[in-house]
Amino acid sequence: MLNFSKCHSILITGANRGLGLEMVRQLLSTPERPQKIIATARNPDAAEELQALAKSHPEVHVVTLDVTSDVSVNDAVQEVKSIVGADGLNCLINNAAINIPCYLDTVTRDAMMKTYEINTVAPLFVTKAFLPLLREAAGQGSGMGIHRSAVINVSSLLGSVELNTALQIPFFKLYPYRASKSALNMITRSLAVDLEAEGILCVVLHPGWVRTDMGGKNGELSVEESISSVLSVICGLTEKDHGEFVSYNGEILPW
Amino acid sequence: MLNFSKCHSILITGANRGLGLEMVRQLLSTPERPQKIIATARNPDAAEELQALAKSHPEVHVVTLDVTSDVSVNDAVQEVKSIVGADGLNCLINNAAINIPCYLDTVTRDAMMKTYEINTVAPLFVTKAFLPLLREAAGQGSGMGIHRSAVINVSSLLGSVELNTALQIPFFKLYPYRASKSALNMITRSLAVDLEAEGILCVVLHPGWVRTDMGGKNGELSVEESISSVLSVICGLTEKDHGEFVSYNGEILPW
Repeated sequence: MLNFSKCHSILITGANRGLGLEMVRQLLSTPERPQKIIATARNPDAAEELQALAKSHPEVHVVTLDVTSDVSVNDAVQEVKSIVGADGLNCLINNAAINIPCYLDTVTRDAMMKTYEINTVAPLFVTKAFLPLLREAAGQGSGMGIHRSAVINVSSLLGSVELNTALQIPFFKLYPYRASKSALNMITRSLAVDLEAEGILCVVLHPGWVRTDMGGKNGELSVEESISSVLSVICGLTEKDHGEFVSYNGEILPW
Repeated sequence: MLNFSKCHSILITGANRGLGLEMVRQLLSTPERPQKIIATARNPDAAEELQALAKSHPEVHVVTLDVTSDVSVNDAVQEVKSIVGADGLNCLINNAAINIPCYLDTVTRDAMMKTYEINTVAPLFVTKAFLPLLREAAGQGSGMGIHRSAVINVSSLLGSVELNTALQIPFFKLYPYRASKSALNMITRSLAVDLEAEGILCVVLHPGWVRTDMGGKNGELSVEESISSVLSVICGLTEKDHGEFVSYNGEILPW
């Protein structure tokens, strides 16, 4: 049984659809859930399902966040600060990401840059901006995990260089996405080194190949199956997982 | 003894200084050297040492190349095509790179994007543009190596996520550089998958920690020591190394 009762607050970016929205949904159906579930979207007005959840559940706080804009990020930090108060933020899940499918013959410089901006650079700057709130929470706990303070970056198996072989047909050719995710893995590992002394857990998470708008209809898992496993993994994260690449099934993946 | 006699043509980007310039210099001092050494620089007029080498060695062709500009890249391809003719290009070394030293507290979105543009995106698009010449050469040989057709991306140990630990003090904190190099590793691995069937060898190379403008004065190797080892490794590359992360000492590094 999932127990998030010691994780007072959790923030999920890109919560308007797909995996992010399902995280909010499943957290709400968990009896021992976080007291504050902060769900961000670039354009909350368009996030009808999320708004409906927020309307019927006072734990859900919908916050506007464009992860590519420092102004928007800083505004969101102020708003979240007023929500979480002196407890700080226990868990930041950088989930927002894009995929511009293109291959060696169709890839463009713009696709590479745009994907990097959103999938790699944005999680770093969102994390930087929320560090004061994560530190506030870290200062009030011991050990490592979401009961204290954690940064969880949603990456992908496709970010593993080691596993990028001809066997991964037909998905090995996503140059912008793959490069952005391997760089996100590196960023997370650097954060793990930098934030370890403060007790802030940092991991990258592979949610599985999921039948979302992004994963397509051939994915191996339903959104529900993926997030059910992902939340179980997140719940059980400890210092053993710090700086690691964790799969939805708990397996540690190679870089 | 280095033997480049079967590598008719080699192209090195960023050959105006540092490791790239030293590659040109040591190739010229090798009796069995490539017939055509194409050395590119963004601004060849300012590359005095390179120009001096070209003046006294007809094997050296200095070509203008701004790796971030498609127009410049395409112009360079046309010029190189007229130099190598029907033999095609045997070896492309993507060496040009930047490092904007910054840490968690000082890193900017601009530093991340600029470094990615030059260190990751540019090698991909330079390789794409030179593919017709690399394919021309690949079609005339067998096996894999610089005698046939090869793309060598100069990366760094700092691009290894696995080796990014607190033990790598004080150089673990270079967020833009590290992320760009792990992404370059991914790009190279993707190229290796895509180009294997055509017999084009793709590897990433760690040249060591070198006392260059970029590596700083505490580097472990002189420029001469690094390039002497690097050229020896490049000379001996075979299908075993395809898609791998090879160190200047021949060791295979973890991703």
